[in-house]
Amino acid sequence: MQPITFTRDCYRLGDEPVHLNSGEFHYFRVPRADWETRMRLFREAGGNCIATYIPWLLHEPREGEFVFTSENGHLNLEEFLTTARRLGLHVIARPGPYQYSELVHSGLPRWLVEQYPQLLARDLAGQLRNAAAVSYTHPVFLEKARRWFAVVGPIIARHTVSRGGAVALTQFDNELTGIQLWSGGPDYNPETFGFGRADGYYPQFLQRRYRSLAALNTAYAAPHARWEDARPVEQQAATDLAGVCRARDYFDCYLASVADYARTLVGWLRDAGVDTPFVHNSANPEMNALFLETAAALGENFLLGSDHYYALDQSWPQNNPTPQWLVRCFQSLEMLRLMGYPPSVFEMPGGSLSDWPPITAEDGEVCYRAHVAIGMKGHNYYIYTGGPNPPGAGVTADVYDYNAAIGPFGEVRPLYEAQKRFGQFLLTHPWLAEAGMECDLRVVFDFEYARWRDYGKSVAPLTFTGSQAQEFLRRGVLTTAFCASFLPGLADAASDEWVADTTRPVFIVSAATMSRAKQERIVKFLQAGGRAVIAPVLPEYDEQLQPCPVLKNFLGAPRATRARRFRGEDVRLSFRETANVFVNGEIFAWDNLPADAQVLGRDELTNRPIAWATLGGRAVVLGLQWSHGMREHAGMLGELLRPLGLQPRVTCSNPNVWCTLRSRGRQSALFAINLFTSPQTAEINLIGPVTLPPMSVLYRELTA
Amino acid sequence: MQPITFTRDCYRLGDEPVHLNSGEFHYFRVPRADWETRMRLFREAGGNCIATYIPWLLHEPREGEFVFTSENGHLNLEEFLTTARRLGLHVIARPGPYQYSELVHSGLPRWLVEQYPQLLARDLAGQLRNAAAVSYTHPVFLEKARRWFAVVGPIIARHTVSRGGAVALTQFDNELTGIQLWSGGPDYNPETFGFGRADGYYPQFLQRRYRSLAALNTAYAAPHARWEDARPVEQQAATDLAGVCRARDYFDCYLASVADYARTLVGWLRDAGVDTPFVHNSANPEMNALFLETAAALGENFLLGSDHYYALDQSWPQNNPTPQWLVRCFQSLEMLRLMGYPPSVFEMPGGSLSDWPPITAEDGEVCYRAHVAIGMKGHNYYIYTGGPNPPGAGVTADVYDYNAAIGPFGEVRPLYEAQKRFGQFLLTHPWLAEAGMECDLRVVFDFEYARWRDYGKSVAPLTFTGSQAQEFLRRGVLTTAFCASFLPGLADAASDEWVADTTRPVFIVSAATMSRAKQERIVKFLQAGGRAVIAPVLPEYDEQLQPCPVLKNFLGAPRATRARRFRGEDVRLSFRETANVFVNGEIFAWDNLPADAQVLGRDELTNRPIAWATLGGRAVVLGLQWSHGMREHAGMLGELLRPLGLQPRVTCSNPNVWCTLRSRGRQSALFAINLFTSPQTAEINLIGPVTLPPMSVLYRELTA
Repeated sequence: MQPITFTRDCYRLGDEPVHLNSGEFHYFRVPRADWETRMRLFREAGGNCIATYIPWLLHEPREGEFVFTSENGHLNLEEFLTTARRLGLHVIARPGPYQYSELVHSGLPRWLVEQYPQLLARDLAGQLRNAAAVSYTHPVFLEKARRWFAVVGPIIARHTVSRGGAVALTQFDNELTGIQLWSGGPDYNPETFGFGRADGYYPQFLQRRYRSLAALNTAYAAPHARWEDARPVEQQAATDLAGVCRARDYFDCYLASVADYARTLVGWLRDAGVDTPFVHNSANPEMNALFLETAAALGENFLLGSDHYYALDQSWPQNNPTPQWLVRCFQSLEMLRLMGYPPSVFEMPGGSLSDWPPITAEDGEVCYRAHVAIGMKGHNYYIYTGGPNPPGAGVTADVYDYNAAIGPFGEVRPLYEAQKRFGQFLLTHPWLAEAGMECDLRVVFDFEYARWRDYGKSVAPLTFTGSQAQEFLRRGVLTTAFCASFLPGLADAASDEWVADTTRPVFIVSAATMSRAKQERIVKFLQAGGRAVIAPVLPEYDEQLQPCPVLKNFLGAPRATRARRFRGEDVRLSFRETANVFVNGEIFAWDNLPADAQVLGRDELTNRPIAWATLGGRAVVLGLQWSHGMREHAGMLGELLRPLGLQPRVTCSNPNVWCTLRSRGRQSALFAINLFTSPQTAEINLIGPVTLPPMSVLYRELTA
Repeated sequence: MQPITFTRDCYRLGDEPVHLNSGEFHYFRVPRADWETRMRLFREAGGNCIATYIPWLLHEPREGEFVFTSENGHLNLEEFLTTARRLGLHVIARPGPYQYSELVHSGLPRWLVEQYPQLLARDLAGQLRNAAAVSYTHPVFLEKARRWFAVVGPIIARHTVSRGGAVALTQFDNELTGIQLWSGGPDYNPETFGFGRADGYYPQFLQRRYRSLAALNTAYAAPHARWEDARPVEQQAATDLAGVCRARDYFDCYLASVADYARTLVGWLRDAGVDTPFVHNSANPEMNALFLETAAALGENFLLGSDHYYALDQSWPQNNPTPQWLVRCFQSLEMLRLMGYPPSVFEMPGGSLSDWPPITAEDGEVCYRAHVAIGMKGHNYYIYTGGPNPPGAGVTADVYDYNAAIGPFGEVRPLYEAQKRFGQFLLTHPWLAEAGMECDLRVVFDFEYARWRDYGKSVAPLTFTGSQAQEFLRRGVLTTAFCASFLPGLADAASDEWVADTTRPVFIVSAATMSRAKQERIVKFLQAGGRAVIAPVLPEYDEQLQPCPVLKNFLGAPRATRARRFRGEDVRLSFRETANVFVNGEIFAWDNLPADAQVLGRDELTNRPIAWATLGGRAVVLGLQWSHGMREHAGMLGELLRPLGLQPRVTCSNPNVWCTLRSRGRQSALFAINLFTSPQTAEINLIGPVTLPPMSVLYRELTA
């Protein structure tokens, strides 16, 4: 079999661009007698890969005692890998240590979590939050995990594609940080992080970050005499800038330890001879941003994907794909692309751990097609098929059903037919594997903002936080762009890639914090003739929360004042020809504007300037955060961007129908998406009038 | 015209049961020339009533200066009422003081909120939270509101049905408590509540409640020498029982003041000659429970309804009707029925203040039909039609569109056709106006629990709070009942109505708190041979948070222990024949069981008893809170209830199809509801196999 390779543009088998069409298939659950039949069915559905967890729980049932065979075959990993090889399916091997997967102790051996309490994750007070959450880099945990990897690594290595086997990708761990953050916050295990120890991980981290104690003490408003005197603060407890700074530093330190952990796991696997690329799956769209350190630590031959569930139980914010959910998925795929990876969904809804509300075949198919519309290059259904849990191993039930495409006893369900239709679509449009997303509007975004939600809440001098910026990006800019049929694409504030093109406008989402380098990059872009809207504030601080008004000073040092102090204060914005722009977010009025400033938008009630332009109109500052709700929001965005050079390729008469364009060379196709429960009609310039049934994605190839 | 009367069973016009089919129609927005046309259209759509706000903002533009005429007619209230009379439409008059309605200052005059800051609502620190939120019973506010009512009251009085006019119902204020609670919490205006004054409202309230300072000091763990020394605590700040008690008392005090305010407003209107019934609309399903004091204060001739929006902007938890939302609506209608009112939705989605996400005609129609299925007896579309806002009066825009059935310039939209089809349905099935809901399973519920969310969070000795009980009722018991096609109905723990029937089982949702009287009622029921499941705890405290284990002691004083201390601790329940019951909520293990106890359910991993029966099997205690997700949840509920006498009338093969039965005398009909995006097929015992399209409600009359 050929190895799977990848660039940010696509996966490849040999030279051939290919969509990675994978399905989760657990040898330890699916009866051995059914392996081949179900693999064959997956190939017939267009699949080219399967993925499986390799549960430590099952293979080291007693400490030091490893078992890889069983009479009924549910432990025969190698036989499984050989079967996949015979059927021509690649394999993504997922040896943990964590699986989750509704296994007891999330897939860790019982002896590990019960006999070694010192290796469990702790809150800042030293208490457990989750009985199965370990401290990733605790020496005892690493010692035990190393022994597991020393056994499972060589098995995987014997079956890699380079050695004639099926294993093409290897995943380390699972949804890193999830089991800790979902239980209340990062791990503060005192031994792992070495609080109070000069050689401790956390004091050392601070020393690398601040270099001098004076700098640390300034940032923390503290009188520490030694690095090890510093202590973290929980994000909820941060009430001033210094507190936010301490919470943020600790979170970065924690993420650095996660990256160390990832590097350690990958190192063990490489040492064992595993020569495939390594992959990891972030647990949800927003969590992609937590893997910047991991990505940097692993460099090439690493690939991050994301998990894109829309409903796993009745408390989820939707039962079926919705536009709001699609925006999150779009942002996720764009973040992965910007990180250099072919946008992949390593856990794509292929059922649900709950029977109700149902994941229906119709919803699944729309979910898959919509993902191709927004640029997905590979996916892995979680799960393709299940079966009986090994005795005592299942959390939810004796049988792991998951309402998957193929039932635990081999039942072929409607979801399978949906996956088959989708597989056929991919196979009959192979050019999409390499096709890019067309983009009219580049939205410059700081990955740091997607991490802010985990640092702390708004504190006094920060007028607009990273987490607010993240929400504004999603509910405001991107949603309005889709409703207005401007084709959006993300650009990374930390990258020079977008700076060269000064002919098309960018929309810069900005919080009160932004690193000096990123601010300088924007200044350089504007100096070179670039066109930009910046909203809703200009940064006042750098990422370390030290004063840093580089961009603001470049724009003439204007002053922003919050234009609404309380709820119930009425504010309304007029922007050029668009009156009555509904204000449903933060709004800032400006004064001390530069001499050449033209006011573009005002509060209709007080006449205060809300939006203004400078640099001959090329830089527009808009003091408004909005959540898309009104046609005036789309009108405003158009009026802001057209004078800066926006030239939308698509016009669509119906804001409920969202369009994307994908192209490769001279080939291109339009996708039109309706994720509402009612039919939608629209007039689309490139294809004419269409009627979209409820919950549907239309695909239409365009002639050059 | 005949007056509108009502009982808990139905509205009546004369002797005729009738469904109240009303639409919101603002004379101050709809151009006068269009009044008659649009009223005629509403009649053609089956409407029999319209409702209108009467904005103080517009009619007293300068203090003491009242205006009820204008050249373009937008202030001519009386002309509007006469027009409605001529067209045979009843009117619900809504003179405020509050309107909200996307009017500036929520419909209050600018001079009022700007010139009299002392009458604004305050937080506990004395700060404003909302620039347009008043302190309802502040003397200055009452003085100003009284003058407004003294003017508008007689106008309404001249047009009541008794005097040959159209006004059949009069609404005081709007969504009481909403503008305060949504801005952070109840009003703590110091003058209104008289903190520190012996004659203050709050000290007096405490005196009435506790009678003796010793009792107060016991409850508050305080050393107060005088009533006026007591101070409230904000709900978030309550960290122990005494704190919760203080927060709860204050909230009750606040709600008592709301009831006083309501009685005052109604008194003024009555004094002015308004002789219609009075109505009020709670802002959402859960808020119904905040009007117990108001209902008691107003007695007969008062009617509470609720507002049942499903989406007003993209942050709502759904874009379209969903089963989770329907359960909330069902609980709301049942609460209204238990309070003695014909279940009414006084603001029924008739558009949205946002253009996006859209309220589609298809979704609207499903929403309306589903409401009839769950027992609705009357509704008022908000809004039926809009128009230009008077200059300076609109918050959102110059034109109030609301995406209503009839556009601001008279456009007839698809939503109108949906309302017309629904109106036809009501007119062609007039028996439904008086038909009741059939009920297999009575779920006993304490209204206090629906208020708990506003008191405080869980504190140490309370094993299960009222807000948890409220969530369990909704996501657990009711959702499972609908999925299992057991027809649920609510019963009020404070009422004797359900006690008489000891042949059918009740399911009692219980928190750690329940008043002595309610506990004694349950004991009496069990002593009389009643059959009950009680879950997930037995009360330990009364409503004042004083120890009160009446029910627990009656059941042999068993002890409950939380069976899961941390997340990640695996627990699984087996109940009789149903194994593998997924535990996704709190779980309690029991010991010290009475001698005759039979254990019915155990934790599969530890064998600890989770469910047990006593009193010869008639009383079952189940230490489990669940959120419906698995077929085993339905299996468990059936196994619990069938031995207690549950005899389901409907069996439906598909948990995604929810059934209700409505009947009057020998007439009955089955409703089957599919609120998913995919078609659903089901085998239903009463009607055979059916296929329900996505988002549809099937109606089938049954032959006796």
